[in-house]
This record gives sequence, structure tokens and C-alpha cells, in this order.
Amino acid sequence: MSIPEDPSGAPPGVTLVLGGARSGKSRFAEAMAERAPRPVYLATGRAWDTEMASRIDEHRDRRGPRWTTVEEPLDLAGTLPGLASPDAVVLVDCLTLWVTNLMLEERDVAHETRGLVECLPALTGPVVFVSNEVGLGIVPDNAMARAFRDHAGRLHQEVAAVADSVYLLVAGLPVTVKSNR
Amino acid sequence: MSIPEDPSGAPPGVTLVLGGARSGKSRFAEAMAERAPRPVYLATGRAWDTEMASRIDEHRDRRGPRWTTVEEPLDLAGTLPGLASPDAVVLVDCLTLWVTNLMLEERDVAHETRGLVECLPALTGPVVFVSNEVGLGIVPDNAMARAFRDHAGRLHQEVAAVADSVYLLVAGLPVTVKSNR
Amino acid sequence: MSIPEDPSGAPPGVTLVLGGARSGKSRFAEAMAERAPRPVYLATGRAWDTEMASRIDEHRDRRGPRWTTVEEPLDLAGTLPGLASPDAVVLVDCLTLWVTNLMLEERDVAHETRGLVECLPALTGPVVFVSNEVGLGIVPDNAMARAFRDHAGRLHQEVAAVADSVYLLVAGLPVTVKSNR
Repeated sequence: MSIPEDPSGAPPGVTLVLGGARSGKSRFAEAMAERAPRPVYLATGRAWDTEMASRIDEHRDRRGPRWTTVEEPLDLAGTLPGLASPDAVVLVDCLTLWVTNLMLEERDVAHETRGLVECLPALTGPVVFVSNEVGLGIVPDNAMARAFRDHAGRLHQEVAAVADSVYLLVAGLPVTVKSNR
Repeated sequence: MSIPEDPSGAPPGVTLVLGGARSGKSRFAEAMAERAPRPVYLATGRAWDTEMASRIDEHRDRRGPRWTTVEEPLDLAGTLPGLASPDAVVLVDCLTLWVTNLMLEERDVAHETRGLVECLPALTGPVVFVSNEVGLGIVPDNAMARAFRDHAGRLHQEVAAVADSVYLLVAGLPVTVKSNR
Repeated sequence: MSIPEDPSGAPPGVTLVLGGARSGKSRFAEAMAERAPRPVYLATGRAWDTEMASRIDEHRDRRGPRWTTVEEPLDLAGTLPGLASPDAVVLVDCLTLWVTNLMLEERDVAHETRGLVECLPALTGPVVFVSNEVGLGIVPDNAMARAFRDHAGRLHQEVAAVADSVYLLVAGLPVTVKSNR
């Protein structure tokens, strides 16, 4: 896998890694974070069922012991400032699960999105967001699914607008959508 | 958002802007059209329900008073020649709704597609088509949905083949798929 | 359509052509294979129903009499070595149907994927794989559909990792995802 090179070894301030199911987006983002002295994994997922639990375990085994793992399903804007630091890379995996959690808790997703985007400029270290691109299929019958993909799409646009780099993963390979370097 | 620069201030003859749900494709196309002295919005959508009606209102508010708005759900090949002019950019939003309308009216979509593509070379000004990419999910159970994405996919191929520029919007950012400039 | 140029007239060793429904991926791959003296079509599809049968006929008519057609729904790793040769291009259409066939036969898809990828370095001629990108929509309700897109996504990653070229077709046009030439 080709990871963009950086002499400092760290990704730029804010990176957004988008991709479909099993597109290699988590692995790509992990490789990026592992170039930092201190990779931090901020998990938004909750083990709702055994399928989800086994994915979480699989990801944790892959990352290995160098990583610090923090779980935060809802309050990203409150958690990120305490984790960011110049020698760390915080990997947020993933934004689509965060949107799911917000919807299940009946939070105002647009408000939470704004809060997240507004906390980013003050972070003292790089952050890499992973998220599922879910908007390229047929319009779902289900109104909740339509609301979900609308929320996710708007969130992606807002994060991408302030990000230094945006990648779309296709078959494990990054297509560069934005690069400010 | 990065809009491709053009010293004349107008997009090339035919532009196709594809993207998923909430990918920023309408906003990107609007920014392109607004560089013309006279932006024209050709709406193919009908307000079938309140969800749709509120999207239409939201788009109209965003565009503002400089725009001329024309509604035509079916006869694009008959309407475009009268709207195109060297000082206008006609934004057609969107082709997937047009395909939906044609299917609901039981028209021959392949025939209508051909009619649209054949009218393009004679237009006297630029036109920007917006359309949803809907073919990158799981095959739908529903035969109508499968027919819809086949029609949309073929239409996109035919318009893209004659277009000067084709963009795929990802998280509000354009990936250039074709550029003849 | 723009097909990447090669003075030898043949595609590189392994090419992966991804795309959504009706994105022009088969046509693109066929144009690539037809530059070889002996294009070979390796069909993984079975005519389960009339919709499928009519697609198979349509593809065969388009290819014309220069092509050799071989049908193999399951054993790609056993079939490819006998078809590959320096003056042929073998077009495998498509990997997603192969995954479907393996699942219907209750084969171990991860094992079969490994077998396919491991046979590639020893092939004596170029091969072009066509496959549907199916992971960019909403998560399907159906567990079988989720398993299918996971299998397809992993297969795409593994083939892409060893491929010389990977393309994503959008509206009939190739977006280059990987190019080792």
C-alpha cells in the first residue's frame, strides 16, 4: 500500500480517509498513524452484536501493543483536545459509527457536526478520520437510512472542507481527493 | 471548494457533475454556473412529497435572485435549445430525477437519452448536468430499482462520452474524471 | 473511450477494472483485450434467469467472432494457467459473479481468493479482471449481502495489491487508481 511520504513522519493536521465496505480504509489510516511515535486509536464503535464485536477484536489484534486505545461513542469534540499532541496521531475510527450513535441517542447531528469541525483548528497534533462512503447506491426505502446518509454526507463535506488531505480508498488503494501539502 | 478556473468565466460546452447523496454536487455545479452573467436553473424535480418539497425550497433559497428557474420534468431535448445562450449557463438538476420521471410516464428511456445527447452539439451555450451516481452499492432486490440504475448508468456513459468535462464529487470535492480543456 | 496506450499493444500482466452497474467496465476491458492477437473471454456468469441470459447474449454479440469464449463459474485458479499465453489477453468477467458462485456452492471464499491470487505470478500472459464495486451504498439489511460485499471487498484488495494497473470506471471513463507502468 502506498502511504504518502512526509519527512516528519506524521500526517498533516487533519486527514479524512473515506471508502466503502472492506476498502482498506482502516488499514491505510493505521499505517499513517503508526509513523508517529505515539499512535492513538479513538474507537467510536460499540459492540452491539457478535458480528460487530468480532470486527472490533480483529482491528485491535491488527494494531498491536504500541497503540493506546480510547473508546468514545459520542463526545468527539470533548475528547479529541485531550488526546491530540505533537508526538501522537489520533485515529478516529469511524465517523459513520459516530453518526449512528448520535442518531440512536436522538442528538442533533448537524449541531454535533459543527462542534466537531470547530474543535479541529485548536488541536495540538494530527488527527485522521476514517469514515464510510455510503451515498453511492440506490436511494434506500427506509427513511432512517436516508437521514443517515444525508447526515454522513454533510459531515464528510464539512470535515473535508477543513482537512489538509482527503483520500478515497478503492480496493485498498488511495485516490487523492484533496492534498494541501 | 475548488472550481476549475477558466479565463472566460464560463464552463466548457457540456459538463457532467456526478456524485452520491449529499456529496456537494449541486453546490459545485451552481458555483460553476454563477460565473456566467446569466445562470439558468432547469429543474427536473417534482415535489412528490414534503421531503422533496423541502429540498427544492432549500436549493432555491441557496441560489438567490440572480437565477432564472425553469421547471421541465420530461422534455429536456425540447427545452434546452431555447434556454442555451452564450451569456448563460444552464444547470440541469438533475438527470436521475429526469430518468425517474420518464419511467413513471412509461417513456422509452433509451430513446429519450438519445434525443438528449443528440440535441447537445447544436446548443449555443454551455450546459452543466448534475446526476446521482447510484450504481456502486449492492444489486437492489427490486426490479424497478435495477432498471433505474441501468438507465441512469447508460445515460451517464452517453453524456460523458460527448462531455468536455466530467467530475465525480466526493465529500464536496471534485475528482476530475474527464477534462478536454 | 480512452484506453491507456502501450507500444506492445497488450495490457500489463494483471489489470483490475472496477466499476458500478452500467459503468462501462466490461466494454473498457474488452477494448483492452482486443489489442491482443488473441482475446479470450473467461465468463464466470451462469444464466440463472432471463435477465441474466439476455445480458450474457448482449455481451457475446458485442465481442464478435475474434474472441474465444470459455465458461468457468468456480475454478479460476485451475483454468487461467491453461488459457494465458503471450499472444492472448484473458478477460475474466466478472469476479463478483465468481464470488456469488462460490457462496452458492458454500466454498471458503477466503481460501479460493488466496488460490486465485497465488496463481497469478506464474501466468505466461496478461489477464484483465472485471468486477463490480458494491461497497459504497448503505449497509444492507441482509446478512448474506453483507457477507458478499465483505468477500468482494477483500478479493478486490488482494488482487489490486498484486495488479499492475487498477481502474475505477465512472460513466464509461477510467479513473486510474494504480499504474505501475
